[in-house]
Amino acid sequence: MDDVNFAVLGTGGIGRRTLDVSQHKDGLTPVAACDRNGIAVDHDGLDVDELLAATEGNVASEHAGDGIGDDIGDDDSDTDDDSDALTDGGTAVKQHGDGAGVVASEQARPTETPIQDVIDESDGIDAVLLALPNLTHDFIPQTAERFAEVGYEGVLVDVLKRSRVIGLLDEREPLFEESGITFVCGAGATPGFLTGAAALAAQSFVEVESVEIWWGVGLRSGYEDNRGTVREDIAHLDGYDIERARELSDDEIEAVVDAHDGVIEFEDMEHADDVLLERAGICDAEDVTVGGILDVRSDEKPTTTTVRVTGRTFDGERGTNTFELDDATSMAANVNGPALGYLKSAVRMNRVGDYGVFGPADLLPGF
Amino acid sequence: MDDVNFAVLGTGGIGRRTLDVSQHKDGLTPVAACDRNGIAVDHDGLDVDELLAATEGNVASEHAGDGIGDDIGDDDSDTDDDSDALTDGGTAVKQHGDGAGVVASEQARPTETPIQDVIDESDGIDAVLLALPNLTHDFIPQTAERFAEVGYEGVLVDVLKRSRVIGLLDEREPLFEESGITFVCGAGATPGFLTGAAALAAQSFVEVESVEIWWGVGLRSGYEDNRGTVREDIAHLDGYDIERARELSDDEIEAVVDAHDGVIEFEDMEHADDVLLERAGICDAEDVTVGGILDVRSDEKPTTTTVRVTGRTFDGERGTNTFELDDATSMAANVNGPALGYLKSAVRMNRVGDYGVFGPADLLPGF
Repeated sequence: MDDVNFAVLGTGGIGRRTLDVSQHKDGLTPVAACDRNGIAVDHDGLDVDELLAATEGNVASEHAGDGIGDDIGDDDSDTDDDSDALTDGGTAVKQHGDGAGVVASEQARPTETPIQDVIDESDGIDAVLLALPNLTHDFIPQTAERFAEVGYEGVLVDVLKRSRVIGLLDEREPLFEESGITFVCGAGATPGFLTGAAALAAQSFVEVESVEIWWGVGLRSGYEDNRGTVREDIAHLDGYDIERARELSDDEIEAVVDAHDGVIEFEDMEHADDVLLERAGICDAEDVTVGGILDVRSDEKPTTTTVRVTGRTFDGERGTNTFELDDATSMAANVNGPALGYLKSAVRMNRVGDYGVFGPADLLPGF
Repeated sequence: MDDVNFAVLGTGGIGRRTLDVSQHKDGLTPVAACDRNGIAVDHDGLDVDELLAATEGNVASEHAGDGIGDDIGDDDSDTDDDSDALTDGGTAVKQHGDGAGVVASEQARPTETPIQDVIDESDGIDAVLLALPNLTHDFIPQTAERFAEVGYEGVLVDVLKRSRVIGLLDEREPLFEESGITFVCGAGATPGFLTGAAALAAQSFVEVESVEIWWGVGLRSGYEDNRGTVREDIAHLDGYDIERARELSDDEIEAVVDAHDGVIEFEDMEHADDVLLERAGICDAEDVTVGGILDVRSDEKPTTTTVRVTGRTFDGERGTNTFELDDATSMAANVNGPALGYLKSAVRMNRVGDYGVFGPADLLPGF
C-alpha cells in the first residue's frame, strides 16, 4: 500500500500514543495534530519526538469524566482527562497554565478553532483519528459531519464504544458517502481489536452461540493519566450510571476505589461490541458479554484479556475458539496498534471508493 | 451486504463441503458446480442436498497425491483424491465407474469442458471457488487467466498453500485488474484462517519477532477421503519431497504411516503462510514456522491448533498473543468457513472495484 498520512484530533493519551506508535510503523506519516489551544501541521511529516516531549505532562486538563470510554478500551476516556479540551467542542473546560498542550511544541501555533483548522487542511490528509472526548453523544458525529460538509474525501476513525454514537453515525452515512468518507467507528481495543478477534474466531462456525470478551487492565502508573477511564468504569457498577459517575468528585471516586481495595470487577458492561458484532452478522447483540477487572494499584494485569467465541460447526460439533492477549501487552498497545491497523485498512477501502460507516468486524472476513 | 452467488470448480471434498457450509450461511447462493465429467448450473440456486447426496462417495478418483495441499489446511489436497479429475486440467486421470461425480446429480449434465462451461456462465456469477487440484503449479493461475480472458468481473478464491503459485498469480495481476478480478489465494485453514489470525494478533505489536502456527488433525473417519493430504504431508518428512511422495504407491504410503503408528509429526513445513505474512508486511517469511501432528487413527485431534505471535510493543514490552481453535472444530470446518468468509469479503471489494491478487492477511487490518 502506498504511504498514508494522517491527522490526530486531540493530543491526549490516545492522540499522543497514536503518534508514538505510528513512528514504529512503515508508511504512516502524521501531518497534523491539535488540541483545544493549538494545532501543529506539517504536510511533510510532524517531528513527533519534539511534539511528544512538548506535550507530555503538559496538556489541557479537567477532572471531566465525561462518561466516555472505559476499561481496556480506554479509548476516548483518557482523552477525557487531557484533550477533552478542544474549544470548539462546545464545552467549557479549564486549562492548566499558559501554553498548555500542543502549543508548547515549536511546531504548533495557537488557535481558537483547532478542528476547523484541521478541516481546512484536510484536502491533503488521507485519514483523521478522532481522539476526541465524546462530550455529548453527537460530538463525534457532528465533527464528522463538518468534514463531510467541505467534501472531505478520506478516512475518519474513532475509538469510541458507546452504541448510541454508532446510530448517529449511521444516520449520517448518506452524507459521508456523498463526500467520500470511510468512517470506522470503535476501532480501539474493545470494541475494535477484540471485536475483530471475535469475528475471525467465528469463522469455524456456522452459528455463533456466544461471544465472551473479558479484559484485564493494570493501571497503577497510568492511573493519573486515566482518571476518566476509572470514572467511566465506575458508571458500570451497581447503583451507578454515566450521569451519576460524571457528578462524582475526585474524592468520591477515590472512596469507591478504596472500597474495592483498588481492584474493581465489572460484569455485563454496556459496550458497543454487541451491536458491532450483530451489525456484521456474527451473532445477536444479546449473545455478547463484556466484562473485566481493573486494578489501579498494580501495573500487572489482574486477569488475562480473552475473547471466547462458542459456536456450532456445519458438521454438528460445538466448540469454543479463543483469542488471548499476553499480559505484557498494555492497554495502550492494544488500543493504538489496532486503531492504526483499521485506519490503514480504511484508507485502502477509501482509495477504491468504498465509503460509508463501518464497524471493526465489518473489516474482517465476512461471516 | 447484498446476496452473493458463487460457483465451485471441483466437487471433491472441499467443493462439496463448501456447498454444505454455504447452506448454513445467509446470503450465499451456490449456482454452479462442476467436476471432470459434468456441470450443474442453476442461476436461481442449486439444490445442494440433492447434489451432495448424488456425489457423496461417488466421485471421480485416482490415487493421485499430486502433492498439493496437506495437513490441517487440507485445502486442495483432498480434492486431489476426488475432483482431481477435471478433464480440461490437461492431466489424464482415471475415473471409477460410469456416471461418477456430479453427473450423478439430476441437476447436472455431462460435459468434456467443465471449466469452460462455468466460464461461459460467469457473467452472472459473483465468485468462483477454485477447489481444484493444482496438478501443476500453474494450473490454478492458468485457469484464472481463462476467466480474465473473457473479461470476467468477479471474485476467484483458491485454498492452495504452495508459495510458488502466489508468484504465478502475481505475474498475472495486471490481467486480473484489467478484467476486474479480485483473487484471494490461500484462503483455507492454513494459510487462510490461521494466517489471518496471526495478522490480527500482531496488532498489539510494532514489531513481530515470530509467528508459530501449530495444527492438529485427527483423520480416522476422514482418512479414505483424504489420502492426498496424507501423501502431501509425507512429502514434508525427512528424506521425502513432493516428487518422491507423489511416486509412492498406496502400499508404500501405508508403510510410512505404519512406521509412525499412524501419528505423524511435522516441523518446519513449507507453507505459504510465511510469504503471505511477509507480503502483508507483518513479519519476514523466515520468522514464520508451521508444523503440526496428523493422527490418521483417531478423530480426536492429537494436539490443539494454535497460532502464537510474539512481538514487541511500542512501549518496550515483549509478549505472545495466542489464537486457539477448539479441538472439536474439524479440519473441514476450519477450511470451508474461512474460505467462504474470505470469498464474501472479496465480493465486497470486487463490487467497489478493488481488483488484484490478495493473500488472506491482506484482507485483515493493516499492520
